[in-house]
Amino acid sequence: MMEAKKDRQFYTYAFPPEKMILESGAELGPVTVAYETWGNLTEKKDNAILLAHAFTGDSHVTENLKKGEEDKQVRPGWWEFMVGPGKGIDTDKYFVICANILGSCMGSTGPGSPAPDTGKPYGLDFPMVTIGDMVDTQKALLDHLGIQQLHAVIGGSVGGMQVLEWSVRYPEMVRCAVPIATTMRHSALAIAFNEIARQSIMADPNWNNGNYYDTGKKPDMGLAVARMIGHVTYLSDEAMRRKFGRRLQDKETFSFGFDVDFQVESYLRHQGNKFVARFDANSLLYITKAADYFDVVARMNHSGPVNNRDQNIIKYLVISYTSDWLYPTYQAKELIRTLKRSGQDVSFCEIEADCGHDAFLIPDERLTHLIGGFLDGVD
Amino acid sequence: MMEAKKDRQFYTYAFPPEKMILESGAELGPVTVAYETWGNLTEKKDNAILLAHAFTGDSHVTENLKKGEEDKQVRPGWWEFMVGPGKGIDTDKYFVICANILGSCMGSTGPGSPAPDTGKPYGLDFPMVTIGDMVDTQKALLDHLGIQQLHAVIGGSVGGMQVLEWSVRYPEMVRCAVPIATTMRHSALAIAFNEIARQSIMADPNWNNGNYYDTGKKPDMGLAVARMIGHVTYLSDEAMRRKFGRRLQDKETFSFGFDVDFQVESYLRHQGNKFVARFDANSLLYITKAADYFDVVARMNHSGPVNNRDQNIIKYLVISYTSDWLYPTYQAKELIRTLKRSGQDVSFCEIEADCGHDAFLIPDERLTHLIGGFLDGVD
Repeated sequence: MMEAKKDRQFYTYAFPPEKMILESGAELGPVTVAYETWGNLTEKKDNAILLAHAFTGDSHVTENLKKGEEDKQVRPGWWEFMVGPGKGIDTDKYFVICANILGSCMGSTGPGSPAPDTGKPYGLDFPMVTIGDMVDTQKALLDHLGIQQLHAVIGGSVGGMQVLEWSVRYPEMVRCAVPIATTMRHSALAIAFNEIARQSIMADPNWNNGNYYDTGKKPDMGLAVARMIGHVTYLSDEAMRRKFGRRLQDKETFSFGFDVDFQVESYLRHQGNKFVARFDANSLLYITKAADYFDVVARMNHSGPVNNRDQNIIKYLVISYTSDWLYPTYQAKELIRTLKRSGQDVSFCEIEADCGHDAFLIPDERLTHLIGGFLDGVD
Repeated sequence: MMEAKKDRQFYTYAFPPEKMILESGAELGPVTVAYETWGNLTEKKDNAILLAHAFTGDSHVTENLKKGEEDKQVRPGWWEFMVGPGKGIDTDKYFVICANILGSCMGSTGPGSPAPDTGKPYGLDFPMVTIGDMVDTQKALLDHLGIQQLHAVIGGSVGGMQVLEWSVRYPEMVRCAVPIATTMRHSALAIAFNEIARQSIMADPNWNNGNYYDTGKKPDMGLAVARMIGHVTYLSDEAMRRKFGRRLQDKETFSFGFDVDFQVESYLRHQGNKFVARFDANSLLYITKAADYFDVVARMNHSGPVNNRDQNIIKYLVISYTSDWLYPTYQAKELIRTLKRSGQDVSFCEIEADCGHDAFLIPDERLTHLIGGFLDGVD
């Protein structure tokens, strides 16, 4: 048995002369995957669940505090309410793994990592990566851990894209798949928002064509605006009305100037500023582009029983949210039709929630019970 | 009779020692209003229609070409299909006026105009203006033209806000009002998009705290991103799917780089670049802020028959679009409930269209007939 809850670990592979061949044809190596695990892997290694994090997330899913540790000064994970002993994804039963995605800046190799030939950060010399490439690094990690099949792969948003990619790239390794608040491919609207975020970063002179790591000046202004755009797409009209309405921030009347008047302005500026402290602008460029390129429609259509009668059937639980306007329910329904046509085992739940795309990150017993029940129902 | 179709004219008032007192309490003067007119004013001066243009528009509603002039090299107006002899707003019957709004950069006084004390552009020394202040400059123009009552005031989006402001500020001067694709006040979502656009401009170092007019370097990058954000809010998910989908721009496969891949990216960059050539960044800051401040809910609630039994009743035609997610139909319905409660004469039409907020600027016979019929029905 592997031991429970470890701190962040690193797996590095593709050392010279080996290289990772990317979907674009470009080569990359060495490749480091930062990951964390919770729970214990059985001797048969048949109880592993891979969690795929969203766009700006990382491997830190949960602190998984024990009794008496509640006051510990720790950084909470992004899915505390979902993952832990006795929770929806029960770490008493499952060995849970989450790896930081390729191209990110949270421990795995990305544009801010040192290029082996120069020792300096790649910047835009970093090759374009795809959701498929991210999944390949996760596959390499599982090989390293000796895991040949996943009980489940679960993730929301860009994490949900990884779930879908897993199910067409390594279907034999996936017993069940839970794509949440996601899409088979970006709409023009989703591409538009990502493009504006990228343009905002590239418009910042400190971006300097991606070479800012040793200039002492980061493209913080452009990155902050990019994050504000993201935040609006993660919320919804209703959620913003409820959360902010037209309430003023620390004032009774308008300032008649360009300082903050409304709470929503204060919130956006705060989110923008907070983000630049933790995230790398180039990583945002690479990951948004990977999301825009992502398109599994053709591969899902062709993976059906007509083409491959020996295919293994994956149990899917597709989840969407009523107020998600980035990946609306109509896109989840397209996914379901495609999966059913190809003979997959599909369950679907649209959750009523007014909080928009980000709903899956907000504590909600309905989601916990839904995923817990689904996992229990699979042997 | 005044003569038909004139070129752009200017009316300047509030010369010292006179001043225009703004809603904020600040003073401004002299104030220039750029305007154009079409058709002939009757001797009774009772056939005037005021058109209020949207956010980045101007006084140039139509070229109103005569037969045989169709090949003339001219700049088309923003409502060619609606305004002209025999059209929805019939210049054979009505004397049509459109004035550039205060704070803009299309001829009327704005932050790019020379401040009288220095002779240099105001920049951020320009006082904050409101939709009410814009309406007051239009009122001053009408006084100058000797027009005491408008047959109608008509406008979409920020123009619609001016229509509503007219109807509460000078109700006795308005016979009928046609607010299109507009709102009584901005939602948090609408404020959020405006704030991000402003932040994008202010993040551009060339913005230089608003002092860029004589530096030779304008905040074009920030302004372009601001415009891209605007453009996404003017379209809709459906319209963008139809118009762009995931089609690539002049290529067969992905570039695996940060150049344009998708048509929607190309479109946004083009819109951004086109815009910086014609619009002033500071004007965008001022006008978006005026739109965010705009709130006629309280005044509309208090203008009802309970409070003023002698009030004059305005005939309203409220128009919304099914796919407008900036000022959705639920906001038009709030307006209608408020108007009805206060005893106004209200008609409402929600037009089925997939092209989003900007729909009223796209040639559509339904809109032409709707407005034409409404105007004909009022004596």
